[in-house]
Amino acid sequence: MARLGEREIIKIFLEVFGKPPRKALPLGDDVSGFMLDDGRVAVLKVDMFVDKTDMPPGMSFFQAGWKAMVMSVSDFAAKSVKPQTALVGLGLPKNLGRDKVREIGLGLRRASERYGFKIVGGDTNEALNLTISTVVFGVSKREDIVLRRGAKAGDLVAVSGRFGKTSSGLKILLEGLKAPPNLKKKLLNPVYMPKARLSLGLNLKKVGVTSAIDSSDGLAWSLYELSKASGVGFILDRIPIAEEAKVFARLNRLDPFNLAFYGGEEYELVVTLNPEKFAKAPKSLRKRFLVIGRVVKEKKIVYVEKNVERKVEAKGWEHFT
Amino acid sequence: MARLGEREIIKIFLEVFGKPPRKALPLGDDVSGFMLDDGRVAVLKVDMFVDKTDMPPGMSFFQAGWKAMVMSVSDFAAKSVKPQTALVGLGLPKNLGRDKVREIGLGLRRASERYGFKIVGGDTNEALNLTISTVVFGVSKREDIVLRRGAKAGDLVAVSGRFGKTSSGLKILLEGLKAPPNLKKKLLNPVYMPKARLSLGLNLKKVGVTSAIDSSDGLAWSLYELSKASGVGFILDRIPIAEEAKVFARLNRLDPFNLAFYGGEEYELVVTLNPEKFAKAPKSLRKRFLVIGRVVKEKKIVYVEKNVERKVEAKGWEHFT
Repeated sequence: MARLGEREIIKIFLEVFGKPPRKALPLGDDVSGFMLDDGRVAVLKVDMFVDKTDMPPGMSFFQAGWKAMVMSVSDFAAKSVKPQTALVGLGLPKNLGRDKVREIGLGLRRASERYGFKIVGGDTNEALNLTISTVVFGVSKREDIVLRRGAKAGDLVAVSGRFGKTSSGLKILLEGLKAPPNLKKKLLNPVYMPKARLSLGLNLKKVGVTSAIDSSDGLAWSLYELSKASGVGFILDRIPIAEEAKVFARLNRLDPFNLAFYGGEEYELVVTLNPEKFAKAPKSLRKRFLVIGRVVKEKKIVYVEKNVERKVEAKGWEHFT
Repeated sequence: MARLGEREIIKIFLEVFGKPPRKALPLGDDVSGFMLDDGRVAVLKVDMFVDKTDMPPGMSFFQAGWKAMVMSVSDFAAKSVKPQTALVGLGLPKNLGRDKVREIGLGLRRASERYGFKIVGGDTNEALNLTISTVVFGVSKREDIVLRRGAKAGDLVAVSGRFGKTSSGLKILLEGLKAPPNLKKKLLNPVYMPKARLSLGLNLKKVGVTSAIDSSDGLAWSLYELSKASGVGFILDRIPIAEEAKVFARLNRLDPFNLAFYGGEEYELVVTLNPEKFAKAPKSLRKRFLVIGRVVKEKKIVYVEKNVERKVEAKGWEHFT
């Protein structure tokens, strides 16, 4: 039996579980929805942090708790839904001491406070891997929720930040690549203490966003998800690479294009924007987005520089392979 | 560092997470609550099934999925809250094949259908243990939710079924005890395909229930939880032992008292009842409860037979020890 990829497993479950109930959010988007009696949507998300795939060397238990919560909050940010409360399901290796358990709890708490909500419950069990399932809940009007589908030809493609620091940091931690101490610190910080773009996410409708996703599986992969859900393609004219990642690429003879597009574990927002609405949005919000291309009908994703097309491949951060 | 028990870990988290927001349900009850704008409560539960502790030998992957969902539904039953939708977080060992993944999904789906709701989302990751986190959601009026606290001296103590079949079945599977084929089948069935008492649970207020819990951690332990939360004690005059467990006890020279009180993984409801309200409840509901004793002020739990007191100990099903 061949090994199954994470996305293939999700596909099996989508088939087995069947169609979602009437009026809820589409299955396979970043959060799940359930229609309440008053017509609003209960928004739910479970995200599973497993030490083996999500806890790089050197990450503290506090940071593990923090990151586990950020993973879920980031999806709420991309859907423009305010998290209101959370639960935590913990699988703990049996000899994990009291101090480490407390550290995980503090990381979870600190992250929830940072994003304005409280943890109200959970469950715990013994497991070989440290496993932290964060369950985030919120309520939203249906029309305020941003989906992966909705991008239209003529829209702009934009991101909420520059990429490549996390993938550089992971290359230092996992592949032993080098960087001078100061640079190294800057590249490792987002690996250990990622931030979710929640305040920006809650303003997505104000800037004319037509579709959105977070970039946790990598920028290229996120673009492919938007492309698939919206039935469109993207022509990009800018590589949103962070200055520090550019320096790291030069030092290690890496292609900045790869660092920016094929990383992962970065919690930026990847969106499409209605150009008229975006032009009218407050400057304070507009300046938080970097426009990197435009939406086209043809379902291809390419980067164009000096009239030369370079295909952005459907590669991303895939835990299972 | 000494190994931490499950309940000790929960205590650490309750301390670290701090007080719940105003008006929600008490922390440490079986489900968590978040007050919605309209004054109703969003009820949430995450329960974590881990193969190592929750999947006895011979359990199929279908049954694992089924049981994982029943574990959460049973808590909703004990709180008298209707489950409305669910998410699933899966940690899957890397070489688990497509058929087994599908079986788990079918078990989850079948259980959710059995209890009247649909699964609308989830997450998956690689893990050493098969881990199935079920997240169940519902909405309820605050006053319709039954808590662990609320039992008063003079109330009756009752259960929704007879105990000991599951603990007998687990003794067959884990300790090699024997039973003739027909009996064995009856003892193993509730181990592999446990049922949640949901329809009965949704009627708890109608029979005058003052506090409730499910018996998944064992009857004795559940009584202690009610005792602690309500600040009362119980004097029991009946051992609610199943006929099949009685036979199994005789064959294997076991004490039926231990089989009934110190088992676990049984999903019956353990409740206290206001005697006047219970007397006035419809007979069809009343007959589904077995009265096993009464609530007293003194915080002790004892079984009395022919004027001899036998202490019910605070022992239960504890995964971590």
